[in-house]
Amino acid sequence: MNLEKVYAHIDANVDSHIAKVQELLRQPSISAENRGIQECAQLLEKYFRELGCGTTEIARTDGNPVVYGEYDAGAKKTVIVYMMYDTQPVVGENWISSPLEANLVDIPPFGKCIVARGAINTKGPLRAFLNAMESIKAAGEELPVNLKFVAEGEEELGSVHLPQFVQRYKEKLEDADAVFFPGAAQDQKGTVRMSLGYKGIVYFELECSGKLWGKGPMEYDVHSSNKAWVDSPVWRMIHALSTMTSKDGNKILIDRWYENVKPPSKEDLQLVNKLAKTFDEETVKEMIKVERFIGNLHGKKLLLKYLYSTTLNVDGIWGGYTGPGTKTVLPYKVTVKMDVRLVPNQKPSEVLPRIRKHLDKMGYRDILVRQLEAGYSWAKTSVKEPLVQAAIGVYRSFGCKPEVSPHMGGSAPLYLFNRGPLYLPFVGGGLGHGGKAHSPNEYFVIEGNEKVGGLTACEKSYVAILDAYAKTEEKHRAARKQR
Amino acid sequence: MNLEKVYAHIDANVDSHIAKVQELLRQPSISAENRGIQECAQLLEKYFRELGCGTTEIARTDGNPVVYGEYDAGAKKTVIVYMMYDTQPVVGENWISSPLEANLVDIPPFGKCIVARGAINTKGPLRAFLNAMESIKAAGEELPVNLKFVAEGEEELGSVHLPQFVQRYKEKLEDADAVFFPGAAQDQKGTVRMSLGYKGIVYFELECSGKLWGKGPMEYDVHSSNKAWVDSPVWRMIHALSTMTSKDGNKILIDRWYENVKPPSKEDLQLVNKLAKTFDEETVKEMIKVERFIGNLHGKKLLLKYLYSTTLNVDGIWGGYTGPGTKTVLPYKVTVKMDVRLVPNQKPSEVLPRIRKHLDKMGYRDILVRQLEAGYSWAKTSVKEPLVQAAIGVYRSFGCKPEVSPHMGGSAPLYLFNRGPLYLPFVGGGLGHGGKAHSPNEYFVIEGNEKVGGLTACEKSYVAILDAYAKTEEKHRAARKQR
Repeated sequence: MNLEKVYAHIDANVDSHIAKVQELLRQPSISAENRGIQECAQLLEKYFRELGCGTTEIARTDGNPVVYGEYDAGAKKTVIVYMMYDTQPVVGENWISSPLEANLVDIPPFGKCIVARGAINTKGPLRAFLNAMESIKAAGEELPVNLKFVAEGEEELGSVHLPQFVQRYKEKLEDADAVFFPGAAQDQKGTVRMSLGYKGIVYFELECSGKLWGKGPMEYDVHSSNKAWVDSPVWRMIHALSTMTSKDGNKILIDRWYENVKPPSKEDLQLVNKLAKTFDEETVKEMIKVERFIGNLHGKKLLLKYLYSTTLNVDGIWGGYTGPGTKTVLPYKVTVKMDVRLVPNQKPSEVLPRIRKHLDKMGYRDILVRQLEAGYSWAKTSVKEPLVQAAIGVYRSFGCKPEVSPHMGGSAPLYLFNRGPLYLPFVGGGLGHGGKAHSPNEYFVIEGNEKVGGLTACEKSYVAILDAYAKTEEKHRAARKQR
Repeated sequence: MNLEKVYAHIDANVDSHIAKVQELLRQPSISAENRGIQECAQLLEKYFRELGCGTTEIARTDGNPVVYGEYDAGAKKTVIVYMMYDTQPVVGENWISSPLEANLVDIPPFGKCIVARGAINTKGPLRAFLNAMESIKAAGEELPVNLKFVAEGEEELGSVHLPQFVQRYKEKLEDADAVFFPGAAQDQKGTVRMSLGYKGIVYFELECSGKLWGKGPMEYDVHSSNKAWVDSPVWRMIHALSTMTSKDGNKILIDRWYENVKPPSKEDLQLVNKLAKTFDEETVKEMIKVERFIGNLHGKKLLLKYLYSTTLNVDGIWGGYTGPGTKTVLPYKVTVKMDVRLVPNQKPSEVLPRIRKHLDKMGYRDILVRQLEAGYSWAKTSVKEPLVQAAIGVYRSFGCKPEVSPHMGGSAPLYLFNRGPLYLPFVGGGLGHGGKAHSPNEYFVIEGNEKVGGLTACEKSYVAILDAYAKTEEKHRAARKQR
């Protein structure tokens, strides 16, 4: 492929590419509120057809549809492009620019950025990838690999029905060689952060109520003077929760919790050692507005903590009167939202039974454990995989030293492709930068600066990665069959 | 006074009396939301003028006004009538009838009841008292005592500015002989519950945040994957709270907490012994929808627990994501609303310093303690006081055996009259019944049945209590000077 011709096309058409990113972001797709999901799926199918996919389909599931598309380039290799078209909610958040207007806002030092819900996570990169593929064709070239698009609309709900889709489409998916997840992987200073693995996740609620307990108010909040002779479900929940972690909230005190945690491999440790040399704590602190990390850790120890810690987090807690001023009530119920992150080789299926057992053992049989999502497994790809090596090479050719992490703190449904029965390697990434995922003022850099790539650099990197991958020797298929 | 003539007037005018109660309840007066307060104060002043008060005034304070009125009957004795014209909020509650419509709803076995916010707590009894006084005059009689009305509009906020009023009006108030607080003191089965004391209360919030702590997210909720390396203010708050009570939530583990708790006196114990004989636990359970009490206590032990326990209650707790479905965040802040009830001789001023000291000692210097109200002292009147004896006599004459409790679980600002500098005895009560104060479907019985008095019985009892009190020998003034 004549990359320069394609790059020139991207540069010449940046305005229409920005407009396409904005178009997608202005179509709401908030899965938690079932807002705009169908409309966004239709828009995506239209995009796949416009690119030239021979097959497109809005594949029904028991939840939100998966938008599927096959692009046959007559190439040797086939890449599954995993995408998510849904976003987090925006309720109760203050934004500098309305989260569904996708306005261009100047954010120093990045220049113009699109500020919108989903800007970086991940509708911005999704559309940038399609822009890149369209530019290849518009420049008179052919895509270097065949593509199978799998765009789901429930990632922010835990990809509840994606397993159903993968199961049904298994035969169409299993002749693929690798999975690519378009992103914008540069941090604020321009360093590319590559992660070869994800943690698993299980999300659930705990509920303590007078009705379940048989003590305390059974049906509604009662006057707080009754605390003198009536038990409190809130105090009960507080004491139950306090048995689940160490005093600092960081060690999980549930039996057998750490039993299946596998220590980092030799390859993992080599990557972490390299990573530690350039790891920029200050940038991370600035991104998430944190002054210090757990245990005041730094460098390699901090990295290992981040990458290899299983977690038990309180996402939300509420009960009783939470409005302004005072209302004297003894609450009849309290609810806690929690998520657990899993590292290799913890299994999602072991989480809730252990929490149930712990609560029972501590005397809290009445506290309800309610799973809210199906849960993810962890996922993991070797640094030696051709697609990984292709991406690393491209980043270097663009003047970026990638920092390759064997793992990351977040979760993604890529385990569905990475673990049985498909066992495919995956890479997520691309040049470019964005931030504040799940937070107000989520942004995706359009203009960029000397260090951080803008939209055109992002799109070019997608082209280059697929082009480089197409040229690698593929030993994967044979190896995969042996796993 | 010709009581029969007055009673006949009350019976003959019940429909207009109901309408007046509805009129007052339909005027919102939600102090927590500053809704309708001024309008309700004006309505009350109009009522006082209509009764024939020579002096009326909407007395300004730094908060909501106190409506003051003096009725000079040329009588020997003067009674301060304490009233509250504000109510609790209704936000987020489901009612069988709109809480501000004050509709008549049939509630078996009581017949017609008014269902409204403030119906029993306490705008229903307030207006019933005024109806009763008006009927005395309409029947051609004169009030048996002089009245000084003190109606405040901040009771549900903790009567923050009533101390200011009492201080300013001290000279007008100190020639009174006793304080009466109109209520409807019958329970569901018709038994009159008389309480000669109130507990004190202190209301406050605790707040734990990344900003105050210096650990955890400083400015907003961040992605929950960060839990691997970032501390959680919510876990911190849970562990801090768990140090404040025993595991069952019922014993307060704060140094010196119980130091000033005075055991019940001989008179108290005599009253509790009597009370225990007729104490109907089942009625209480039904009223507050509770299946069992703390420690499965019954009878006298349960009563002592209720009357003499100081409490530490969680009124509300919230932090992070509390909406539907899932949102994976590590919250930057959590807030807890708490109230403390005080028994003799605990002082409101000792509460927050002890909580502060406890948190400091346990290592939680960063957790903020924010007082929301000025706090009340406890209050206490002897059963031997003439006004108490007058009320007991009236209840008996109406065929009701009153159950006299030396104390109650709730709080009221009556300490402002009962403790220094005024040291006045007080009685709250009257026949009649209502329930669900601070809860949905708050009601005030209008029709009544064989056991429970309706509106007319309530009004007649007010007339009779004042009439009986006027006839008692008053030794109070001399005794009071010695306290």
